[in-house]
Amino acid sequence: MSTQTRGGMQKGTITKYRPFTPIDLPDRQWPSKVITTAPTWCSVDLRDGNQALPIPMSVEEKLEMFDLLVKVGFKEIEVGFPSASQTEYDFTRRLIEENHIPDDVTIQVLVQSKEDLIYRTFDSLRGAKKAIVHIYNSTSAQQRRIVFGLDKPDIVGIAVRGVRLIKDLVATLPETDITLQYSPESFSLTEIDFALEICEAVVDIWQPTPDKKIILNLPTTVEVSTPNIHADQIEWFCRHLRNRETAIVSLHTHNDRGTGVASSELGLLAGAERVEGTLFGNGERTGNVDIVTLALNMYTQGVDPDLDFSDIQAIQQIYEKCTRLPVPVRQPYAGELVFTAFSGSHQDAINKGMNAQDASSSDLWDVPYLPLDPKDIGRSYEAIIRINSQSGKGGVAYLMESEFGLQLPKAMHIEFGKVIKHLADVRGSEILSTELFTAFEQEYLTRTRPFSLQSFESRTLLNKDSSQTIECVACVTVNDVVHELRAQGNGPIDAFVRALNQHHLASFKLLTYNEHAIGQGSETQAVAYIQLQTESGTLFGAAMDTNIEIASIKAVLSGLNRSSSAN
Amino acid sequence: MSTQTRGGMQKGTITKYRPFTPIDLPDRQWPSKVITTAPTWCSVDLRDGNQALPIPMSVEEKLEMFDLLVKVGFKEIEVGFPSASQTEYDFTRRLIEENHIPDDVTIQVLVQSKEDLIYRTFDSLRGAKKAIVHIYNSTSAQQRRIVFGLDKPDIVGIAVRGVRLIKDLVATLPETDITLQYSPESFSLTEIDFALEICEAVVDIWQPTPDKKIILNLPTTVEVSTPNIHADQIEWFCRHLRNRETAIVSLHTHNDRGTGVASSELGLLAGAERVEGTLFGNGERTGNVDIVTLALNMYTQGVDPDLDFSDIQAIQQIYEKCTRLPVPVRQPYAGELVFTAFSGSHQDAINKGMNAQDASSSDLWDVPYLPLDPKDIGRSYEAIIRINSQSGKGGVAYLMESEFGLQLPKAMHIEFGKVIKHLADVRGSEILSTELFTAFEQEYLTRTRPFSLQSFESRTLLNKDSSQTIECVACVTVNDVVHELRAQGNGPIDAFVRALNQHHLASFKLLTYNEHAIGQGSETQAVAYIQLQTESGTLFGAAMDTNIEIASIKAVLSGLNRSSSAN
Repeated sequence: MSTQTRGGMQKGTITKYRPFTPIDLPDRQWPSKVITTAPTWCSVDLRDGNQALPIPMSVEEKLEMFDLLVKVGFKEIEVGFPSASQTEYDFTRRLIEENHIPDDVTIQVLVQSKEDLIYRTFDSLRGAKKAIVHIYNSTSAQQRRIVFGLDKPDIVGIAVRGVRLIKDLVATLPETDITLQYSPESFSLTEIDFALEICEAVVDIWQPTPDKKIILNLPTTVEVSTPNIHADQIEWFCRHLRNRETAIVSLHTHNDRGTGVASSELGLLAGAERVEGTLFGNGERTGNVDIVTLALNMYTQGVDPDLDFSDIQAIQQIYEKCTRLPVPVRQPYAGELVFTAFSGSHQDAINKGMNAQDASSSDLWDVPYLPLDPKDIGRSYEAIIRINSQSGKGGVAYLMESEFGLQLPKAMHIEFGKVIKHLADVRGSEILSTELFTAFEQEYLTRTRPFSLQSFESRTLLNKDSSQTIECVACVTVNDVVHELRAQGNGPIDAFVRALNQHHLASFKLLTYNEHAIGQGSETQAVAYIQLQTESGTLFGAAMDTNIEIASIKAVLSGLNRSSSAN
Repeated sequence: MSTQTRGGMQKGTITKYRPFTPIDLPDRQWPSKVITTAPTWCSVDLRDGNQALPIPMSVEEKLEMFDLLVKVGFKEIEVGFPSASQTEYDFTRRLIEENHIPDDVTIQVLVQSKEDLIYRTFDSLRGAKKAIVHIYNSTSAQQRRIVFGLDKPDIVGIAVRGVRLIKDLVATLPETDITLQYSPESFSLTEIDFALEICEAVVDIWQPTPDKKIILNLPTTVEVSTPNIHADQIEWFCRHLRNRETAIVSLHTHNDRGTGVASSELGLLAGAERVEGTLFGNGERTGNVDIVTLALNMYTQGVDPDLDFSDIQAIQQIYEKCTRLPVPVRQPYAGELVFTAFSGSHQDAINKGMNAQDASSSDLWDVPYLPLDPKDIGRSYEAIIRINSQSGKGGVAYLMESEFGLQLPKAMHIEFGKVIKHLADVRGSEILSTELFTAFEQEYLTRTRPFSLQSFESRTLLNKDSSQTIECVACVTVNDVVHELRAQGNGPIDAFVRALNQHHLASFKLLTYNEHAIGQGSETQAVAYIQLQTESGTLFGAAMDTNIEIASIKAVLSGLNRSSSAN
């Protein structure tokens, strides 16, 4: 069968790529596990992250990033590759000499398994209280063949010689508590039994104990399979590793297939105990796994991640300043758009959920479409609902209340929702909440034709049967002609409605009315919503005034003015 | 135990969130499956995608997006919610009336299970050859309680009434081949047995057959669990569904936990046959699943995705224009930075991999760190390697060759690599490839002090034993003092080296030299690289000239000038 291409891509029978060979592990246990505790987190923002920046961080920016990582709660931080450049060496020295490293934080330094680089690495660590020396060499068949031209025993030899030298050099830094971390780089593409073999060869040299474990870091240097196969790799490794209790199995997933988070999560189910990653997923190519997402995923499942993202926006600000990369708008938890809902039904459900949450005695978070309370990470409710032509009445009503304190009556949601939908349809772009209020003003508050109130007074007449009648005297202009009106009713609004009808200025009935103060205190405004039945249908009027009575009267005229403009 | 908080996040015992209850499926089969064929793809760019835009697409932009989706190869495209707004209705009409829909493409329209909306939806479809009517109602316990205040039977009733009406209305569009799609919205949070119950109630009304299947779309409206649990939900559903052969089970994953791609992949392993998603993962909040990533993930595993991303940049351009959202720089496959490597060891490995690939007779792609040949999707090799202070000699050498045709000798990689590393360290930002060439020029080509060549001639003397001797006559300025040199050697370079030594202008030996033409044809320049052993060590000189002999002679002086400046 010949291979066709469409443009650059092959089609039909694909000969250019082949599927990853799965791990034989039919009795895998990880799919029935759940994550119940946080792993040990190691930030590699200053290594993998920094290495992948078009403009690497300056030393000052690295220090700011280091302090941020400490503040977030990382207890292990890879600070660089001190033997690779003077800049990296100097930064490590500065951290140590200027006492930037808290007692409960361990710095980690990366080094290839090469003699001169290992010596230089130990030089860089002088004076540190604790350090993880992270040695690696590449182990996949592809790398062995293409890059090194070496067979398996030689590759094992590279690792073993490096670890032996590190073991010898430990004595030269008596004041530093050194942990060894070994990475079979390109683990994801390495035959699983060879990955085990080389790790065990390293373990045999290092001789870790349950009290002083070795870290075996198994990188998905390049994602090459669906994340379930990565989990099989990790479970296979954990189950076959000799003296499992003397090792911490660590994950280091990249995101080439967009499944870095899943690979880390399933890898934890499969037995790993430690995760390397970066804030917001910065890192080579598609990035390292995003620890913010991983940690908040755990949090929303009731697991304390032991990292503090309570002020995600401040963290994002420092991150963006140091990396010069923006956090994408749809990035989980942090992205600008992830706590918004444009869709009407979503907005309605969120609105109801928020109300139910406020009324509930349980502190369990239970709002549709929001897996996390945005407040938990310092984001606000106000931004949740934004209005465009896809939005419904629920979202509009929610914003009118949350932004402006206007509790529109339920029946009015539909009416004002249509006003906004029309506006958004015409506009074709998002309606800002300030524009929502402007639209409300123009539709309800500022119409003065044909009806405009000049003055209104009411007084109470006590009847013989001790019931009360209200008499009103109103001055109203109708298309600039002044009318003096007087009538009686069972309240000021009723009297005013009667006055307008009796003077044949309008023909309508009052259906319902709602009033409320906006905000608290004596100087607040009141708002009145009046539903009228006119010849052309039912509709609302609304008005605001410091005087609640005047607000109602104006609201009646607002409705009449709207009715008149609809004819 | 009392709950503490750090800022907004709880710590210790988390009472605000609880873990998702797993599906009881110990004999799950999906973890041993692999994806071997592409699913049916349905684009929801014009629905979920458009709905989530701060500025929704104009009708013209929607048409452009629709044409793009057709060109990419989507055979099912959800075009809107025609009963929700006049804009959406008009767009559907325009697609049909202006014949934008190819015969092999089916449009899909979304509608809530409400009588008036269903009528309006059928109105919008008049004249379409084929259509999927996609009806949904929300089914989760949370939505039933908070949003609808209804019990399960009432929720089933909503779905059933809607489907019954659709079944009645099919007869009103005899020229349209209608497929029914039903979504239990918020499936991911719905009790799995109730999701099955409501789908089977719908199936019972619709009466699909193996030849005329129903689409049952099971949305991860909100991601609420690790993706393996989503796969368990899908497998449980597929295994329990009556008359499984009469249904197409469809996925619709969102990305709230950053695992939308994984959820779709594992959902396909679990038995689903169809995927809804968007280009580049646009969509409500964190977005819908990114179909570009899903499709290219399959492609790199040897599975033809039946979608054409051969010119990803053209697709991205139209996408960004229509949505006004940028594709993030680390987005798999499409992001600006995903085919770059800043790290020295990565660059070296890619360089070796590319060379091995060129030399190989197999067309199997096998380059480290690049799971996809960027050429396949219309991206170029040139951008793969970019140089900053983290980069190594391999990347520099690769770029010098790929960008400028300069094949630096292996031993020179180290020397020139140090030059560039120093430059990058000082600069602190990325070195563009043009700057790489400028640095090469300044280091090797343009030095004229102390030595500068004024003229060079050589002639061949035939010896009595018929061997040849070359005599050179050279005019060289040394710190502006003119020297006329004459000497003999076994070649012009040898003669020139002897001349300089014999006249005590310099003391050095020639170690190696390499020369090559740059590009092809008779008018190309030649470049010469000469390695010298001087009193201060070994070093390279290099020079370019249209005359290969002159290039060599100049290269000798280039080396001497560098040596002199190093002292």
